[in-house]
Amino acid sequence: RMIPYRMPVINDDITLRNSQIFYEEMKMRRSCRQFSSRDVPLKVIQNLLKTAGTSPSVGNLQPWTFCVVSSDSIKTMIRKILEADERDNYVSRKKGASWVVDVSQLQDTWRRPYITDAPYLLIVCHEIFRDVHSKTERVFHYNQISTSIAVGILLAAIQNVGLSTVVTSPLNAGPDISRILRRPENESILLLLPLGYASEDVLVPDLKRKPVEHITKLY
Amino acid sequence: RMIPYRMPVINDDITLRNSQIFYEEMKMRRSCRQFSSRDVPLKVIQNLLKTAGTSPSVGNLQPWTFCVVSSDSIKTMIRKILEADERDNYVSRKKGASWVVDVSQLQDTWRRPYITDAPYLLIVCHEIFRDVHSKTERVFHYNQISTSIAVGILLAAIQNVGLSTVVTSPLNAGPDISRILRRPENESILLLLPLGYASEDVLVPDLKRKPVEHITKLY
Ligand SMILES: Cc1cc2nc3c(=O)[nH]c(=O)nc-3n(C[C@H](O)[C@H](O)[C@H](O)COP(=O)(O)O)c2cc1C
Ligand SMILES: Cc1cc2nc3c(=O)[nH]c(=O)nc-3n(C[C@H](O)[C@H](O)[C@H](O)COP(=O)(O)O)c2cc1C
Repeated sequence: RMIPYRMPVINDDITLRNSQIFYEEMKMRRSCRQFSSRDVPLKVIQNLLKTAGTSPSVGNLQPWTFCVVSSDSIKTMIRKILEADERDNYVSRKKGASWVVDVSQLQDTWRRPYITDAPYLLIVCHEIFRDVHSKTERVFHYNQISTSIAVGILLAAIQNVGLSTVVTSPLNAGPDISRILRRPENESILLLLPLGYASEDVLVPDLKRKPVEHITKLY
Repeated sequence: RMIPYRMPVINDDITLRNSQIFYEEMKMRRSCRQFSSRDVPLKVIQNLLKTAGTSPSVGNLQPWTFCVVSSDSIKTMIRKILEADERDNYVSRKKGASWVVDVSQLQDTWRRPYITDAPYLLIVCHEIFRDVHSKTERVFHYNQISTSIAVGILLAAIQNVGLSTVVTSPLNAGPDISRILRRPENESILLLLPLGYASEDVLVPDLKRKPVEHITKLY
């Protein structure tokens, strides 16, 4: 069944201005690693996740689950696992992945206080397998892309309401965190996003973004 | 060097309302496969891509390149490659990937007129390798996640200005398209996004999105 799809017609000048305003807004986003203890209404979190859920996905599978952790004891357990894993990476530089070290150096140490300080910790998961005609297929790759796109839309929504986050990778801690959250076998943890208001005195590294000429090419 | 990061302080009621408004706006997004011939100012496209470029990325690598194709002859070449590949997938159902067939069935056939009808075709690429301390590392996995997140932010920006797109996978056609665009060896094509105004009489499949209770879990 097909249905009509209508978008309002807007003139070019207004479109140009709107694209500029949205850019200025998103440009202000920075990864935040120090959070205020100010609480966030759960209804806001729900609206943010509903927004993420409007994302396109391969075959409309909508393969994502957003675990919303506000329990202090669960946040503490997850933080311990992440810090132990981060320390391992930092110290042994295992797998020769030097970007892991680069990211670590953006912080003082292997410590991740923001995991417990933010009022919410979102754990973004996606499906790994799918049953099709009584056959099990691995859908990891495409589900990972779809779910990452949903995280992008989520970040835009977070920025739009003035909340802050830092996208973090579970590195090798995914399976342990899955166990704590009792996630089903069919799910993999993609990313972790502590979510709250930035603390008032937060500092961020003075990073530069590439100019648009360096990231676009016209044909 | 660290710098302060300031976000405006907004009260909870307004935050709640803003989160609702942004959700309502993003909810209207649908994948569009029929485009109007109405042109889009290049400056708007640039603002959209600047917005995508504000995305976070692992180690701040900003591993993305957005190729903006407006040349009719290049769009036609890419469409031919994609249609040949899609037809192969559809007919032979190769690799047993039945979701490929599912996606195809959303369209009438293997035909992809929207690739040439939209005024712009964006080809999203990302870096595969990176030289660190005169050693070459494969950074495919994390760059793919970072670039998909940037695509999510791009989709939010596209929706915000009332333009339309459909995220499409290059399936097996990536390397051939890379050659046409003379992309360097160090880049892989992630996704293709035709971009323009939806045609006035566009129809979309009557798909349902999962309710928020099905995609979130509280802890
Ligand atoms: C990574 C990705 C790849 C996609 N590939 C295709 C594709 O090759 N062809 C197509 O028609 N749609 C493709 N889609 C669009 C999905 O079919 C569409 O998002 C889904 O059916 C939900 O519909 P909606 O976007 O209108 O909400 C893709 C979406 C994603 C996220
Ligand atoms: C997929 C992904 C994983 C990331 N993992 C981490 C992480 O484990 N720890 C961390 O401190 N930052 C992490 N970041 C944040 C980046 O370091 C940050 O986005 C980058 O330095 C640019 O800074 P900005 O977000 O303030 O623009 C990650 C970002 C992405 C996109």
